[in-house]
Amino acid sequence: MTRLERLQSRIAEVGGCGIITDEVNRRYFTQMKSSAGTVLVFPEESYLIIDSRYIEKARATAVGCTVILEGRGEERFAQMNELIKKHGAKEIAIDSQTCTVSQLAHYRSKLEAEIPADGRFGRLIRQIRMVKSPDETEKMIAAQRIAEQGFEFMLGYIKEGLTEKEMQLKLDYFMLSHGAETLSFDTIVLSGPNTSMPHGVPSERRVQKGEFVLMDFGAVVDGYHSDMTRTVCVGEPTDKMRKVYDIVLKAQQAGINTLKADITGKDFDAAARDIIEAAGYGDKFGHSLGHGVGMEIHEEPYGSPVSNAVIPENSVITIEPGIYLEGEFGVRIEDFAIVRAGGCENMTLAPKQLICL
Amino acid sequence: MTRLERLQSRIAEVGGCGIITDEVNRRYFTQMKSSAGTVLVFPEESYLIIDSRYIEKARATAVGCTVILEGRGEERFAQMNELIKKHGAKEIAIDSQTCTVSQLAHYRSKLEAEIPADGRFGRLIRQIRMVKSPDETEKMIAAQRIAEQGFEFMLGYIKEGLTEKEMQLKLDYFMLSHGAETLSFDTIVLSGPNTSMPHGVPSERRVQKGEFVLMDFGAVVDGYHSDMTRTVCVGEPTDKMRKVYDIVLKAQQAGINTLKADITGKDFDAAARDIIEAAGYGDKFGHSLGHGVGMEIHEEPYGSPVSNAVIPENSVITIEPGIYLEGEFGVRIEDFAIVRAGGCENMTLAPKQLICL
Repeated sequence: MTRLERLQSRIAEVGGCGIITDEVNRRYFTQMKSSAGTVLVFPEESYLIIDSRYIEKARATAVGCTVILEGRGEERFAQMNELIKKHGAKEIAIDSQTCTVSQLAHYRSKLEAEIPADGRFGRLIRQIRMVKSPDETEKMIAAQRIAEQGFEFMLGYIKEGLTEKEMQLKLDYFMLSHGAETLSFDTIVLSGPNTSMPHGVPSERRVQKGEFVLMDFGAVVDGYHSDMTRTVCVGEPTDKMRKVYDIVLKAQQAGINTLKADITGKDFDAAARDIIEAAGYGDKFGHSLGHGVGMEIHEEPYGSPVSNAVIPENSVITIEPGIYLEGEFGVRIEDFAIVRAGGCENMTLAPKQLICL
Repeated sequence: MTRLERLQSRIAEVGGCGIITDEVNRRYFTQMKSSAGTVLVFPEESYLIIDSRYIEKARATAVGCTVILEGRGEERFAQMNELIKKHGAKEIAIDSQTCTVSQLAHYRSKLEAEIPADGRFGRLIRQIRMVKSPDETEKMIAAQRIAEQGFEFMLGYIKEGLTEKEMQLKLDYFMLSHGAETLSFDTIVLSGPNTSMPHGVPSERRVQKGEFVLMDFGAVVDGYHSDMTRTVCVGEPTDKMRKVYDIVLKAQQAGINTLKADITGKDFDAAARDIIEAAGYGDKFGHSLGHGVGMEIHEEPYGSPVSNAVIPENSVITIEPGIYLEGEFGVRIEDFAIVRAGGCENMTLAPKQLICL
């Protein structure tokens, strides 16, 4: 069953017709990358209406849909209305999470069907995307292998005196020249006291002996993201640094050990959080334990103290506890794993014992 | 007058209150970069409601607004409702071009005022952003100088046998390690027959002697983008390559010579297009002559055969004609300039005569 067939089989739940225009969902469902194009989904058939720049590529690679050359200007609405009429759709569903207010107004003024503004279609799309096929996790593993080569490279490169920015640029260049289609997100490389900022930005600060370097990074392969964080030490850490590192590592291992299909996001989060709290650092772990990863770097499912939803089988989620001591240092360790019935498959192979360079 | 004061002075036109939540507009109006935060604009005062991660930075750097620490969860809506009540606003305007349908639904369910879905506020914002201050063009010039250093570097680096991807990665690494905050967009480096694709993606193809290399790239400084394209030759071009290059260069110069405040986008476009048409290549110039540049790489004003709007004084626009011969080669030459009353100031200094490496 193609991805579009899966969506077609459930499109009646949202009124019998769905329209997809954002880049990520278009690429997910048609398996073709483009910066433009409209997907129309009916129970019987799906269509990709796309302009002349992409038409040849679309005809050769788009999966599970009839490809139509987009007319100029207003003509494309006539093309869409024809399909709507042909399939007898009375209602069109938009993805409220990506459709802008002005796009919706435009569709309402041009298309000959009702267009409700509710969130059902967006939820259906995300429910489908959350559960990964082997084909998808293979790409994420390939992306992760590139990131791990980058980490390996960094272990030989990092030394006293380098700036965070220099280290970040080297890591990015390595991943991009070793097969990454792009970076999963703006790579984070922080040093010394800056490591206490969970979302810090690489600066001109130079790393000194006895300091942590925290790296949070990922590669993209064929649209699929990887995500990992490692914290290493330049020279010898203090006892406190070592102690905090070990707590985070234990918490991370507990998260991995607990992760399995149908656990709630809340219970997953608690497995790691309990250890950090018991060690007296509960208030120093300000973010949630994990987030889904796929064609987007942050997607469903989520593992946080307020996630009541369950984490489904074959979804992918990060396990990334941290302890952040303002003005001193921070530690975060992050892997990502495929959720299975009895446990999880960790896609991350990089070592996690504290590495001192 | 701060940027927010300028917006406040016109906020009555859109109902007396505006809400801004997207990253670019938030950064433009508060002059602070963040991934979250809500700006509320009233005639008398503006507010930035922002979470604890950014609060210190916001208090130190946000311009022209009162900074408020965002409450958790539902609390932030109470904070917003309090301000709406205090200023007596009956209506709240959203930017329909960036606000999603689900965000609007959320606001409508939580905020105690009418929230129309029309495009007035978005148009007002873009009208203001289109006209640049010297402070803004200075940053774009700084970004352009970095890109030009990158071009200079590439002239010494490009040689037969390099892949498009290798060249692109080198150029990107150069700009990022010479002060670019980020890249203006995914850098385009194409070679040989690939240069005929206006939106081609760098591939593993190796450039050969006698081929063009087309580079379209830019750097970002403090949120402001630059944009330039150069086409150079590795070895000696054919007579046809030289002839087409000269036509594009003439067309580009005509565009620059015609560009001045209050010309229509259409007339600006025609100045270059007429020359390409007269040379018999009219159907090989499939895109428009130029687009505005600022905090976004594509913004108003536009210069295309269908742009009836005028190009205002102190806006910034690209001048980028091209001729694309499928299966053979393509040429594009692009500068960007500040529009003035009697003409324009070209911000691009890189040479444009055909360079053979």
